[in-house]
Amino acid sequence: MKLLLSTALVALLATTAFANDPVPPDLRQTALEMFKPLPSTTPAVADNPITPEKIALGKALFFDPRMSASGVFSCNSCHNLATGGDDNLETSIGHGWQKGPRNAPTALNAVFNIAQFWDGRAEDLKAQAKGPVQAGVEMANTPTQVVDTLKSMPKYVEWFEAAFPGEADPVTFDNFAKAIEAFEATLITPAPFDAWLNGDDAAMTIEQQQGLALFIDKGCAACHGGINVGGEGYYPFGLIEKPGADVLPEGDKGRFAVTNTADDSYVFRAAPLRNVALTAPYFHSGKVWGLNEAVAIMGTSQLGEELQEGDVGKIVAFLESLTGRMPEVTYPVLPPETASTPRPSGAVIP
Amino acid sequence: MKLLLSTALVALLATTAFANDPVPPDLRQTALEMFKPLPSTTPAVADNPITPEKIALGKALFFDPRMSASGVFSCNSCHNLATGGDDNLETSIGHGWQKGPRNAPTALNAVFNIAQFWDGRAEDLKAQAKGPVQAGVEMANTPTQVVDTLKSMPKYVEWFEAAFPGEADPVTFDNFAKAIEAFEATLITPAPFDAWLNGDDAAMTIEQQQGLALFIDKGCAACHGGINVGGEGYYPFGLIEKPGADVLPEGDKGRFAVTNTADDSYVFRAAPLRNVALTAPYFHSGKVWGLNEAVAIMGTSQLGEELQEGDVGKIVAFLESLTGRMPEVTYPVLPPETASTPRPSGAVIP
Repeated sequence: MKLLLSTALVALLATTAFANDPVPPDLRQTALEMFKPLPSTTPAVADNPITPEKIALGKALFFDPRMSASGVFSCNSCHNLATGGDDNLETSIGHGWQKGPRNAPTALNAVFNIAQFWDGRAEDLKAQAKGPVQAGVEMANTPTQVVDTLKSMPKYVEWFEAAFPGEADPVTFDNFAKAIEAFEATLITPAPFDAWLNGDDAAMTIEQQQGLALFIDKGCAACHGGINVGGEGYYPFGLIEKPGADVLPEGDKGRFAVTNTADDSYVFRAAPLRNVALTAPYFHSGKVWGLNEAVAIMGTSQLGEELQEGDVGKIVAFLESLTGRMPEVTYPVLPPETASTPRPSGAVIP
Repeated sequence: MKLLLSTALVALLATTAFANDPVPPDLRQTALEMFKPLPSTTPAVADNPITPEKIALGKALFFDPRMSASGVFSCNSCHNLATGGDDNLETSIGHGWQKGPRNAPTALNAVFNIAQFWDGRAEDLKAQAKGPVQAGVEMANTPTQVVDTLKSMPKYVEWFEAAFPGEADPVTFDNFAKAIEAFEATLITPAPFDAWLNGDDAAMTIEQQQGLALFIDKGCAACHGGINVGGEGYYPFGLIEKPGADVLPEGDKGRFAVTNTADDSYVFRAAPLRNVALTAPYFHSGKVWGLNEAVAIMGTSQLGEELQEGDVGKIVAFLESLTGRMPEVTYPVLPPETASTPRPSGAVIP
């Protein structure tokens, strides 16, 4: 018994020595006050009961490039489920090879954000889903043409009827958005961090746990908290010190455009950090490609502190524990066009 | 017994009367001399043993937009497995919003074509796979950058090692193409026509069988024969009467560009017709959106015959029996970029 105890003690000391910055014994308790593990089931969303039929329809719509005027872009083009739910571009390339104004955020776990877009201008995913479809630099389509396109394909009409039973005219732009929201609500990615929060000590390495402790101690968690480790509130980018115009372009005042309040100048929704290791480049400008660099910029701009390289490394290790298991998605087979389907057009209307 | 027989006779007569143009009793036998059902297994391809590891790697590459210079286009962008293996555009939109010169053919069952592209300039799918990646108007990438991109991601290196065991340097542009070929060889779509060829009388409607009889009688099957109902040989478009320049643009002389032989002016590979009902618009120019119209044009240009509307309808019914069961594809999860991954660029280099 004595031998066993001292072996355990030696092991413990070795870990501590190796770690050289011990993990606080109450770390999980502290963490559970600031974060929440993902649920094991699809979350409910407001005003949109989720059914298997609605999820299946939403998946088809999410992957259908015919929802864009050109026939080139689907939701998945910029929120690619194969690459972390985003497109890994500075800002997306859309209709007419135009560049979007801000970096495309991931669709993964987006259902848990307080609101959608970098400035929170859409209150939920069904409101968000209507945006890019109509944006001239993205999918450049109109609600009328989306509905015409859908109604021209009998299989889609059938799927809408199944997803919205009892509705006299189920193929609407509102229902299009609701179905996409239902599918997106299924895109949740349980990660080692969740397993650790749920009690599995081995799910995170010591370095990742140390990174978590630093993430809390340094103050990162004050803005990046909750179920999505961010995505819960709005904060000025450059709270302490504004980053250069390369990272924070002067022309984009963030939430100011939504609220028209001076206080909201350069205010953005704190980025949700789940799967952040998969979603470079970073910030709304998409100007920073390295996660270490992004963490260091956050240190100076938001915390007024030049983080040590070792601490940055640990925080990045923690952020990597937020990389989750991707949802398994069977690629959809979409209904074929008919004679009455509006023809795709890549023409750019100024 | 007598009663049963006469009931059967009445049923037979009724069918015949309804059909009003009886199906030749030896139709299956005749058809089997001109066509071949799809095999039940993945076909072997030359110089490229197909393994599960190679298929899995090829699937990842097929869906990876980082194989293009811009990070926007993957193989699947123009050969979309959700929409019949093509993009349903006149000609594809590629890098810099440039339009490709010819309609994108389906990747489904392409493994059975005699050669690839409308002019057969690639002898097989591994040769074909190298084309669009490098075409300035498509993915605008270079073999060197493709290999650099792949080597920058440890998971890809691991997958290449598993797919090409024993090779000292498995991550090559040749192996990239071979893996894509292996995946594409799995994209085969058994159709009602196959079931009927295999002996299931009920797999095709009477109208579809009548259409098949017409397809053979009128001479369509002379060019559109074999396992892919086409894709087996080269023929002049406008054999009897050249269609207008809207459908057959003067500047595109087809196979002439490959062989430099006057006889090959306006010669193209006869289109493989499997899933043709899903792959509008039609012809290398992509100028014809209706399948009925396409069949009528073939009648005048290739057969010198104005086909009756009813016959066109029956032939189209037969063509619809070529719409097959799509392969079930789980959407891949791709390796994340690293610091050494070449950055995407949408710049158009003239």
